[in-house]
Amino acid sequence: MGSVTFETDPSRYRHWKLDVQGAVATLALDVAEDKGLAPGYKLKLNSYDLGVDIELNDAVQRLRFEHPEIRCVVIKSGKDNVFCAGANIRMLGKSTHGAKVNFCKFTNETRLAIEDASESSKQIYVCAINGNAAGGGYELALAADHIMLVDDRRSAVALPETPLLAVLPGTGGLTRVTDKRKVRRDRADVFCSIEEGIRGTRAVEWRLVDEVVPNSKWKEAVAARAREVAAKSDRPKGAKGIALTPLARKIEKDRVSYSHVDIEIDRARGLATVTVRGPAGAVPASVEAAHALGAKFWPLTVARELEDAILHLRSNEAAIGVVLFRTDGNAQAVLEHDDFLAKANGDWLMREIRHYLKRVLKRVDVTAKSFIALIEPGSCFAGTLAELAFAADRSLMLIGAREGDNRKPAAITLGAANFGFYPMGNGLTRLQTRFLGEPETLTELKGKTGVAVDGEEAAELGLVTAAYEDFDWDDELRVMLEERTSFSPDAMTGMEANLRFAGPETMETKIFGRLTAWQNWIFQRPNAIGEQGALKLYGSGVSPTFNKDRV
Amino acid sequence: MGSVTFETDPSRYRHWKLDVQGAVATLALDVAEDKGLAPGYKLKLNSYDLGVDIELNDAVQRLRFEHPEIRCVVIKSGKDNVFCAGANIRMLGKSTHGAKVNFCKFTNETRLAIEDASESSKQIYVCAINGNAAGGGYELALAADHIMLVDDRRSAVALPETPLLAVLPGTGGLTRVTDKRKVRRDRADVFCSIEEGIRGTRAVEWRLVDEVVPNSKWKEAVAARAREVAAKSDRPKGAKGIALTPLARKIEKDRVSYSHVDIEIDRARGLATVTVRGPAGAVPASVEAAHALGAKFWPLTVARELEDAILHLRSNEAAIGVVLFRTDGNAQAVLEHDDFLAKANGDWLMREIRHYLKRVLKRVDVTAKSFIALIEPGSCFAGTLAELAFAADRSLMLIGAREGDNRKPAAITLGAANFGFYPMGNGLTRLQTRFLGEPETLTELKGKTGVAVDGEEAAELGLVTAAYEDFDWDDELRVMLEERTSFSPDAMTGMEANLRFAGPETMETKIFGRLTAWQNWIFQRPNAIGEQGALKLYGSGVSPTFNKDRV
Repeated sequence: MGSVTFETDPSRYRHWKLDVQGAVATLALDVAEDKGLAPGYKLKLNSYDLGVDIELNDAVQRLRFEHPEIRCVVIKSGKDNVFCAGANIRMLGKSTHGAKVNFCKFTNETRLAIEDASESSKQIYVCAINGNAAGGGYELALAADHIMLVDDRRSAVALPETPLLAVLPGTGGLTRVTDKRKVRRDRADVFCSIEEGIRGTRAVEWRLVDEVVPNSKWKEAVAARAREVAAKSDRPKGAKGIALTPLARKIEKDRVSYSHVDIEIDRARGLATVTVRGPAGAVPASVEAAHALGAKFWPLTVARELEDAILHLRSNEAAIGVVLFRTDGNAQAVLEHDDFLAKANGDWLMREIRHYLKRVLKRVDVTAKSFIALIEPGSCFAGTLAELAFAADRSLMLIGAREGDNRKPAAITLGAANFGFYPMGNGLTRLQTRFLGEPETLTELKGKTGVAVDGEEAAELGLVTAAYEDFDWDDELRVMLEERTSFSPDAMTGMEANLRFAGPETMETKIFGRLTAWQNWIFQRPNAIGEQGALKLYGSGVSPTFNKDRV
Repeated sequence: MGSVTFETDPSRYRHWKLDVQGAVATLALDVAEDKGLAPGYKLKLNSYDLGVDIELNDAVQRLRFEHPEIRCVVIKSGKDNVFCAGANIRMLGKSTHGAKVNFCKFTNETRLAIEDASESSKQIYVCAINGNAAGGGYELALAADHIMLVDDRRSAVALPETPLLAVLPGTGGLTRVTDKRKVRRDRADVFCSIEEGIRGTRAVEWRLVDEVVPNSKWKEAVAARAREVAAKSDRPKGAKGIALTPLARKIEKDRVSYSHVDIEIDRARGLATVTVRGPAGAVPASVEAAHALGAKFWPLTVARELEDAILHLRSNEAAIGVVLFRTDGNAQAVLEHDDFLAKANGDWLMREIRHYLKRVLKRVDVTAKSFIALIEPGSCFAGTLAELAFAADRSLMLIGAREGDNRKPAAITLGAANFGFYPMGNGLTRLQTRFLGEPETLTELKGKTGVAVDGEEAAELGLVTAAYEDFDWDDELRVMLEERTSFSPDAMTGMEANLRFAGPETMETKIFGRLTAWQNWIFQRPNAIGEQGALKLYGSGVSPTFNKDRV
């Protein structure tokens, strides 16, 4: 697979049809089987690969920004007789371990984005299953707020991964069945063992779907349900969307640049530096002016560019293990933009931008790279951008100024954004997670809101891992990076996946922690991927041979 | 490694010295380096293998039953200059994947048993680290309620697995650092990257230990702390322990039998049947009489035998993927024993037995085998033994009687034991977890306490997965078992690890879910176990070569 780009727009969709009618949007999955992202497989039966999910992610995103009038989104199949057969098996069978893991991660994030749209923006998803929904197909449905299944004596929901492929329903399926739908564990066990799945009233009784509807009444029932769901939404009346215009992205060999974000890659050292620039100007004069700026409004620009940068590094720069976060600009201007967002929180667009930044920061939390924030003179780790330092595995701060550098000494400035804008997957803010063991520090930090905290104080307060004077900085940084890049990348991934999420677990952290880890484990086992394994032999007519040892 | 036996007693310890003085016991680790469980490695520097941990588990257990007078247990090293170097690396390097996973599981359970002793029985553990505590050595300390570290300018605590071995501190280390000790995540990241660890006041400041004490005051400080901790315990005064006498176990080729538990193995089908027999007689006349019975008191006998059976199946019967639970006996007698335990809950021994049964049932929950309960005429799935059905992945029940069988129809009888005696790792009872989606059923079930619920009603209430008439039973069971044993064992392990724990996560479920799954993943990665991997090359003087891709 060549370089993956995550940017698209409806005019370029190959697999989804987005239709908007009044307050209801319909997303119809109609996969073009010859248009997979890579050669070597056909996307039969509405099965999907990363390319299909990139379009879905784009549609979910655009609906929130470009269509504030939409209150209900109906996901259905554009094909007769099949809803979706899930992730394409031949694609999985041919993928490297890393590609499988990244694919699952992205699709998980898209499912969570659907749930976030229903919950945070009341753009509520209904899944209308008009045909078999198997594996990832049913997992897509599980992300919806309401699941309808046609009762045609044929269409079923199924999680056949285990009996058929010797892998897990790893896109949240197992977790959502027990924790979201609260299916009884033994029924879940039975359900996950039945290749053909469960249909009709039994699917309702087991809470696998919310309702079944006879074929003859299907269309009107879906429409009526969509209207009913739309009526419950608090989306604004008469609002006008903004366009998510194409990203200003330029890719060179060792550099990717956007308007406010740059990636510089040091391949020899296995390092990348992501620099985020603060706002160039003042906040808009009014909320209307911010709307008029649209995708050029700084917080939205940064969210989009940073998200694309993270996704690019994940999928296209596997060998880069360590990412340095730098910021550049005026801290006050960042805080003013945060305040603007906070004050205008009743406005649908400002609300969307905050939720979007939340989701982008969560993408950082689950990225399998070490993040290290470097807080230096000229940086603007304030409010929203300070979250990058708190999302990082470590942060280093320079004490005082640099010789021959007349910029102000490095500072961290906390703002309202750090105390509630951006909960992590565990439901806590990054500062709450960080100071789980010392809530009194959190109280102290609230008192520092708006104050530029210098290196020495930041280290003392625990806001950064360490602070160094100029004459120590280069050596300390060099040694740390040499060490970090020398460690086993797998051990780093496992360590970070555990250390980043102290405190409560939620369905979301269960999906990325417990379920994903088991899936990744199975994705390496010979019973799945060996020459006699189920993923390799699927569709060949030959049955897999399993090593029977239980581990 | 040959057949592992988990039974031992202090007279046979090779690696631990148990010393009891008044209210304080001391467990000194003094590993005999030539007495590893398998050939091919030396247990240098107080490093451990499964054999060392089997003794520790035995000591923790005996202290609770045989030494009710003990209020504080001090864990220390019996060697000079080293506390414990953790799991032996050569042993890990030579172990199969399955052996590594089972080893970690058992040591995790032992650490949790230590925490359960501190919390549930106020037999409170203090760890006195008199020398370097690295990796599993520090993870052992993390299980204690209070950690003391000698301040001799040499002794440190460390989790060097990641930099040194390219694996995780997988015996709860990562989780306990962030969630129990609440170490700040970036400090945890630094700590887990420093081979030599952290010592002195910095270890206290970072919350890695509770106190450091100069060498000159060490002995008296440990003794004083032990006395202080002992004074806080609510252990009974003047109580007399009971002896955990040798198990009545007989191992044959396809059969292991105890006094009240049998295992029958069907190797051709990959199946084992564990049968638990109810009490032969009435409850003792008094609590004193129960004490006099000691290890022959039915609930304690069953706990010990069932635990040994589960551990035996895990370690010595890897190829057995499915375990059938059967019971045999008088349901009323089981319930009477439960009532006896409930009424005598103020008695230290009765309390211990309940906590022990809780831990044994938790061992079932984390065992990588499919459990299926068969509820048939003559069985006694009541109260405590009904938990076996609720711990199982599925349960099948026979409706009515069998032809030519004059025993009473199968029944499930709920009792107080099912509503709070035995919380799972997630903090909920098995019935609460089972009916997470329908709390009203839980209320209904409380009303059924003491009522023999037959197959049809049990299926309707959701107490069993399915109920069949006699003429369907054999076919249904055969088909289900054929199917179950045909699935990939790995996929089953992953599926069960996810489906068994709906609802809240705790430190305990995080350890077995998130942390263990990542560790298992890493235990398969070439960067750890390949010919150029860190585990393989450790001690050879050759540096490992890592594939740098981040996954």
